[in-house]
Amino acid sequence: MTPDAAKQWDTSTRSRQARLARARQAVGARLRDKQVQPEDIGALLSAVIEPGDRVCLEGNNQKQADFLAAALAALDPAQVHDLHMVQSVLALPEHLDIFERGIAARLDFSFSGPQAQRLAKLVDARRIQIGAIHTYLELFSRYFVDLTPRVSLVCAQAADAQGNLYTGPNTEDTPAIVEATAFRRGIVIAQVNEIVDTVPRVDIPADWVDFVVQSPRPHFIEPLFTRDPALISEIQVLMAMMAIKGIYAEYGVQRLNHGIGFDTAAIELLLPTYAASLGLKGKICRHWALNPHPALIPAIEAGFVESVHSFGSELGMESYVAARSDVFFTGADGSMRSNRAFCQAAGHYACDLFIGSTLQIDLQGNSSTATRGRIAGFGGASNMGADARGRRHASPAWLRAGQEAQAGGAGAMPRGRKLVVQMVETFREHMAPAFVETLDAWGLAEDMGMELPPVMIYGDDVTHILTEEGIANLLLCRTAEEREQAIRGVAGYTPVGLARDRRMVENLRDRGVIRRPADLGIDPRLATRDLLAARTVKDLVRASGGRYQPPRRFRNW
Amino acid sequence: MTPDAAKQWDTSTRSRQARLARARQAVGARLRDKQVQPEDIGALLSAVIEPGDRVCLEGNNQKQADFLAAALAALDPAQVHDLHMVQSVLALPEHLDIFERGIAARLDFSFSGPQAQRLAKLVDARRIQIGAIHTYLELFSRYFVDLTPRVSLVCAQAADAQGNLYTGPNTEDTPAIVEATAFRRGIVIAQVNEIVDTVPRVDIPADWVDFVVQSPRPHFIEPLFTRDPALISEIQVLMAMMAIKGIYAEYGVQRLNHGIGFDTAAIELLLPTYAASLGLKGKICRHWALNPHPALIPAIEAGFVESVHSFGSELGMESYVAARSDVFFTGADGSMRSNRAFCQAAGHYACDLFIGSTLQIDLQGNSSTATRGRIAGFGGASNMGADARGRRHASPAWLRAGQEAQAGGAGAMPRGRKLVVQMVETFREHMAPAFVETLDAWGLAEDMGMELPPVMIYGDDVTHILTEEGIANLLLCRTAEEREQAIRGVAGYTPVGLARDRRMVENLRDRGVIRRPADLGIDPRLATRDLLAARTVKDLVRASGGRYQPPRRFRNW
Repeated sequence: MTPDAAKQWDTSTRSRQARLARARQAVGARLRDKQVQPEDIGALLSAVIEPGDRVCLEGNNQKQADFLAAALAALDPAQVHDLHMVQSVLALPEHLDIFERGIAARLDFSFSGPQAQRLAKLVDARRIQIGAIHTYLELFSRYFVDLTPRVSLVCAQAADAQGNLYTGPNTEDTPAIVEATAFRRGIVIAQVNEIVDTVPRVDIPADWVDFVVQSPRPHFIEPLFTRDPALISEIQVLMAMMAIKGIYAEYGVQRLNHGIGFDTAAIELLLPTYAASLGLKGKICRHWALNPHPALIPAIEAGFVESVHSFGSELGMESYVAARSDVFFTGADGSMRSNRAFCQAAGHYACDLFIGSTLQIDLQGNSSTATRGRIAGFGGASNMGADARGRRHASPAWLRAGQEAQAGGAGAMPRGRKLVVQMVETFREHMAPAFVETLDAWGLAEDMGMELPPVMIYGDDVTHILTEEGIANLLLCRTAEEREQAIRGVAGYTPVGLARDRRMVENLRDRGVIRRPADLGIDPRLATRDLLAARTVKDLVRASGGRYQPPRRFRNW
Repeated sequence: MTPDAAKQWDTSTRSRQARLARARQAVGARLRDKQVQPEDIGALLSAVIEPGDRVCLEGNNQKQADFLAAALAALDPAQVHDLHMVQSVLALPEHLDIFERGIAARLDFSFSGPQAQRLAKLVDARRIQIGAIHTYLELFSRYFVDLTPRVSLVCAQAADAQGNLYTGPNTEDTPAIVEATAFRRGIVIAQVNEIVDTVPRVDIPADWVDFVVQSPRPHFIEPLFTRDPALISEIQVLMAMMAIKGIYAEYGVQRLNHGIGFDTAAIELLLPTYAASLGLKGKICRHWALNPHPALIPAIEAGFVESVHSFGSELGMESYVAARSDVFFTGADGSMRSNRAFCQAAGHYACDLFIGSTLQIDLQGNSSTATRGRIAGFGGASNMGADARGRRHASPAWLRAGQEAQAGGAGAMPRGRKLVVQMVETFREHMAPAFVETLDAWGLAEDMGMELPPVMIYGDDVTHILTEEGIANLLLCRTAEEREQAIRGVAGYTPVGLARDRRMVENLRDRGVIRRPADLGIDPRLATRDLLAARTVKDLVRASGGRYQPPRRFRNW
């Protein structure tokens, strides 16, 4: 083997140098250190982005590089086109305008909640080619393998003139994006709310950043994890009681993640009341991988919670988090350091339980929030809701779940198991049943030409399904038929539930595969809102000692 | 709920302040910025470490904080004792001296290769209590949940006076350790080879570091991934041919990780010769999660490889990596940026195949390198060798493996599958059979009081077993009995192999479950060392254009 003398091995470095030279030509006269004038942003993007580039436009679960998104969407598609966007969340209209205007053509992403319908339409009209829908950590992983961004447009709270970035509490995806881009000779441009002499702390070193621009307005940020306790129903209280007594206490769950929603908010609000009355303080829910949910405040104040590491932050929780530094990960400046990549890894490998909701569950236990005409993605749920088969450390919860799973197979190698709980009411809004014979995901896959139906959590990763009718423990099912009947057995008055084999379901109940509230010693009449440690947002503020400052839309006072 | 007025919420901040105050008292007079004098290191450690602390002493796969390890081991156990060590690798004698001397009592780790025997003895003598053995990413994950270090002793190439760290190519675990510690108000102390005015690039921001100390000698670093091609046998060449033709080409494997060893080095060295002759260039092995293996040089030079992201680096590869920046992740200073956390995530979520070796495989396909009297751990293999059940993006290799796995279950939800290949010769050194009825791991678990036998990769995560006898495709096995016979069928003349049911094995061969070299169109007579793209270390140097500079122990010229 002799090296091919003609082959160039630094094309990416040359490309980077050429882009930076064009940038200096376009905006250099007004460049101060790395600081670009806001009115020059279009010229900068045109100078550094080439047609066909892989571009990450930081769209997070919460904070949004909205100024850069608008600037990208305003470029001339004759000059900048066929971009391949690789970003975790599509949240802003501009994220799709880019495709509609012909600037971008291909997309790899994780979540598109608010834009799911428009995304499906654009796919249908062949204006967007979707590479794949990922769980967050999977997308970040591909940044280091086959989807490394050539240009990344990211978002921070502040920068100094050298380009050191301060993200404040919403670090989110930024470290993963910037590391992958900067160390493969890509270009990193950050929009910041302010340029300061010295940043309060360095979240991203200046070395890794090429340009910073002060956006005319502070970046958009969504308070995604706030749930008003006033909207929690008594059915949700009942389900939360079952989760606490029938699963958390039963397995001794110490380390966990909660999906977003009122169901899990109810659990959080029952910890200092119902769970405390069962003597569970210090025995369950000590360590969390979780955004700083306002609904967790009463449990923190009651001393239930030892630690919380977060994917991102939550608007209004800044002062409270800073005042509870024993619990949260915070920096020398007092504000939180979140990190979606590490928190997803923690959710996968260091938590014993994930509990979340879904829109549909089929007879095998597969669940999905995908419905026809909407391409939403699943964010982190697929990662947290998967058995971590690489895990090797034991905990009582993990060992017990593993024992239950293997009770059938004698002589098999013993192995632990993650608890993955789907918590749904049997009927959703508008009386749509949560249990179905066939997931809408099949139809969506057909419509959109996907290789596989978009399943959020596969049935064989789910361990428990919890409804107002009871808990189905799928670990204890010996056959596919038992599994189906266990699911029907908690599906209530939905068509799936009504079609159950009553004798088999009663047999499953005798064996403890299905447990009704009565089997758990829970009296549904006691499941009232009085059990909630906070019944309003104002109660949460009070519990926080006035430190939680909810966004205006959650205040009615 | 009203907050408990008496409860303090900043005990960790106060503890940090008290430790820093003690440090200033102990070494402050000679402190320059964050720079501690080497002779003060013992006083500093005594000042900041308290009995019972959770401490991370950076022991990586390669670089070692050896100066800090020696200093920690030399502390007075009357003053510093009962530490809980949380570190990925136990590599140095000092890592165990700490326990022998009574300074530390408890251990959570990932890998202890060179110290495995001594570790087992100390456990047996009840001098060490092992929490658990983890895969790397799992341990890092726990740093953010329930194993956050209170004090971390890390290792870098250089620092400036402010404490900015430059890790050079061996970043490895450092970012994960420092982020978890610094943002939970722990203390971070870094040993560096040199203090400079300006670091070549910032790998860890100064904000996150409390003290730096220049070690009297450069830190120890192990060239762990170098395999001398001269030691590759013709059996290994044959097995490599089978891997390439029977698995890589068959599934179209583009993104992968190779375990360490001569078996995989042989595959790497056959890419530009045998694989190229099959027309596979551009069709397989384009993207890697891999340390910069010297054995990969010929494949890189032949244009097989588009990208390599690395856990750590490899001694001697510095100039070569810098000269091949299109392939590797490098910084503005030209040297590599590795990152074990991100590379493990990439191996888990963005690779279609993991191939590695083991010491023992049982009849269910469970494999382990654990043997009686040695507690070694598995490093990254358990993470890479696990089906990534949270993965949602499709690739041809992943879809095909998923289809094969589900061929039995009609109507089931289709799902992809990771390829996990165990590659072993039927007999190891000293004629020890690689195939066994019962893993030694069972006995080790009993001896050491472990909750579960230490299995490296569980049988139901393994898709193929490859020996000199052929490839057993476990995905195609319909029953546990078929699986057992498929394994016996490639176990050759080991007792496990001799006990096979010949008729069933022939039937499995007819169905393509077992494929012999002849079934793959491979003539074993052509499996000679002539096929290796490099047959000596000198060949590798030549292939690199003189850029690869192997450590002395690999040179015989």
